[in-house]
Amino acid sequence: MGPHPAVAAIRLAVRRVLHDILTDHSRHPRTAGERAGERVGGRIGARCARPLGGIPEIPEQTPNERPPSPLVLVACSGGADSMALASALAFEAPKLGIRAGGITVDHGLQAGSDLRADEVVLRLRELGLDPVEAITVTVGRDGGPEAAARDARYAALDAALERHGGTAILLGHTRDDQAETVLLGLARGSGIRSLSGMAAVSGAGGRYRRPFLQLDRQTARKACLVQALPVWDDPHNADPAYTRSRLRHEGLPALEKALGKGVVEALARTAQLSRDDADALDTWASQAEASVRDAAGLLECAKLYALPPAVRRRILRRAAIEAGAPAGSLFARHIEEVDRLITGWRGQGAINLPGKVVAQRQGGRLVIRQG
Amino acid sequence: MGPHPAVAAIRLAVRRVLHDILTDHSRHPRTAGERAGERVGGRIGARCARPLGGIPEIPEQTPNERPPSPLVLVACSGGADSMALASALAFEAPKLGIRAGGITVDHGLQAGSDLRADEVVLRLRELGLDPVEAITVTVGRDGGPEAAARDARYAALDAALERHGGTAILLGHTRDDQAETVLLGLARGSGIRSLSGMAAVSGAGGRYRRPFLQLDRQTARKACLVQALPVWDDPHNADPAYTRSRLRHEGLPALEKALGKGVVEALARTAQLSRDDADALDTWASQAEASVRDAAGLLECAKLYALPPAVRRRILRRAAIEAGAPAGSLFARHIEEVDRLITGWRGQGAINLPGKVVAQRQGGRLVIRQG
Repeated sequence: MGPHPAVAAIRLAVRRVLHDILTDHSRHPRTAGERAGERVGGRIGARCARPLGGIPEIPEQTPNERPPSPLVLVACSGGADSMALASALAFEAPKLGIRAGGITVDHGLQAGSDLRADEVVLRLRELGLDPVEAITVTVGRDGGPEAAARDARYAALDAALERHGGTAILLGHTRDDQAETVLLGLARGSGIRSLSGMAAVSGAGGRYRRPFLQLDRQTARKACLVQALPVWDDPHNADPAYTRSRLRHEGLPALEKALGKGVVEALARTAQLSRDDADALDTWASQAEASVRDAAGLLECAKLYALPPAVRRRILRRAAIEAGAPAGSLFARHIEEVDRLITGWRGQGAINLPGKVVAQRQGGRLVIRQG
Repeated sequence: MGPHPAVAAIRLAVRRVLHDILTDHSRHPRTAGERAGERVGGRIGARCARPLGGIPEIPEQTPNERPPSPLVLVACSGGADSMALASALAFEAPKLGIRAGGITVDHGLQAGSDLRADEVVLRLRELGLDPVEAITVTVGRDGGPEAAARDARYAALDAALERHGGTAILLGHTRDDQAETVLLGLARGSGIRSLSGMAAVSGAGGRYRRPFLQLDRQTARKACLVQALPVWDDPHNADPAYTRSRLRHEGLPALEKALGKGVVEALARTAQLSRDDADALDTWASQAEASVRDAAGLLECAKLYALPPAVRRRILRRAAIEAGAPAGSLFARHIEEVDRLITGWRGQGAINLPGKVVAQRQGGRLVIRQG
């Protein structure tokens, strides 16, 4: 008799990702320099946003170079999703000659969080993971409590990956988390990039992998139950002070009641489609940008006008960010206003953008610079 | 003292659209042949999805040709949105030398709907609209009750526009309707085209215009109240048997509670951005399609592989529809499966698509045809 269907599902999801990691690893083993802290950029970006007509590059492998046995870490909060992930990694990794370890991050935001972190370490060791580490971080205030905790967590995970010479870190985000992320992006109303949720592969060199992005939360929970794995329910997840928690416990259920049970799946599919679309349009914009600049590098209004609005507005956004406008403060309405210098020109004055950036039309050219 | 802010808002929205209609009309007056029933396609499409590097065409105007005074109709159910729209049209049209008329459609779905239609006709005449007409339609069953009613309504409006030699029909959809439409599209999970909601300009020759797409329902309602216009609340709008009604009364309010009051505006902005993005990607796909076909017109797998996924999948979708697959039954998962013949080729067999269309890989070519 095989494992329970929920356990089979989480193992299959992890096995697929480990296969991908092995394939990438054998093509592109990390060098000592990279392990010591250099970021490996570009390769994943190239795969996601392949340029027009390009073929993805496969890095050459030096003959006789044998990649070391890779180490894959799981980031584990002790909650059901990441405990299920840890259990599946512990089961699948040895079969593929992969070393499996675990990291738990103590955000220090709740009393007793250090004790809980120690407990998670014990549980991960019981699963057979090695190395296992608890890392305490200091959460700042930038961008709100959720963003600050996330920033601190990823910085700690990045450092742990380097320290242990690991190849990848598995994250336990499920399809339900993805659906919530899409709705949070929708609420920003800033276009399809913000609808594209979390990537299955992200981070420098593709270090972060999310095997459960197509799996529902219920399956992860069930897999813990049938494997008798104790799980910890983070009280933050039920705290209505947090937007994501309100969405999870009120917003999404109401949406499912109105639109039917397929909403979570539809949102997750929307994320993937939006991501591919946004990547393609970014590629187009980046290629078109060169063609709309004059010899002095200034943007020519007539040439911008001839582009599709979606491409033109992406070029304007890039130009504003390049001039110093912070991406996070640059909203669709700012870009629309700059766009009207091109499409609705009636002699209007300079447009003020975040970061003291100013956009103005001068002699058929669009000038965007810090004022 | 000027009008109440709500009345000022609805009038401004209508004035802007009437200006657009006048501009388009003077550039491109409809000929007798078009008025008699021919469809005028292409022009609006060309404006929305301008090809790469192209400049929008402005049709030449023959000297001494004087366009007739245009007639603009309002489609009015008697509800607050369309009554507000009718009142604003009646006020603004004469100032611009435009004739204003009204149409109400009796779907015959409720007892006494004919009497109500007569009442709407009276109210529209009281506003000074002329011609005014009630049209009774027979609602079929295709695609569910909402879709069938919509199809019957637009067919009747199209016919009325031709019969009266009108230039455009104004529709009372508000920003709230737009937000609901985006959520309905989101529930389909079929990509950004289904997130793009309703267009401000649509139909053959741009005949349908939605002046209130940026205006909230509350403003329309307020404008009726302060102008002492009686409005009719369609019981369908509150009937939880209808998906849209559940969304309006339960889904959206819950989402606003979780995400904040800006959700409706964010959804409406998402619609516009998604529409522009989808238009641009359709343009790209249509241009790339020619470059991936061999001399015999077959799709070359290697060339398809080199395209960004977003563009490749659009080409595959177009090819499937061209081969006879009904667009409405062709889902993202179908296209993903066909895409795996390109990106995950391991000798798999033919893929069955709706409409008895079959996709298979043969000697490096993708063959999609009715089997």
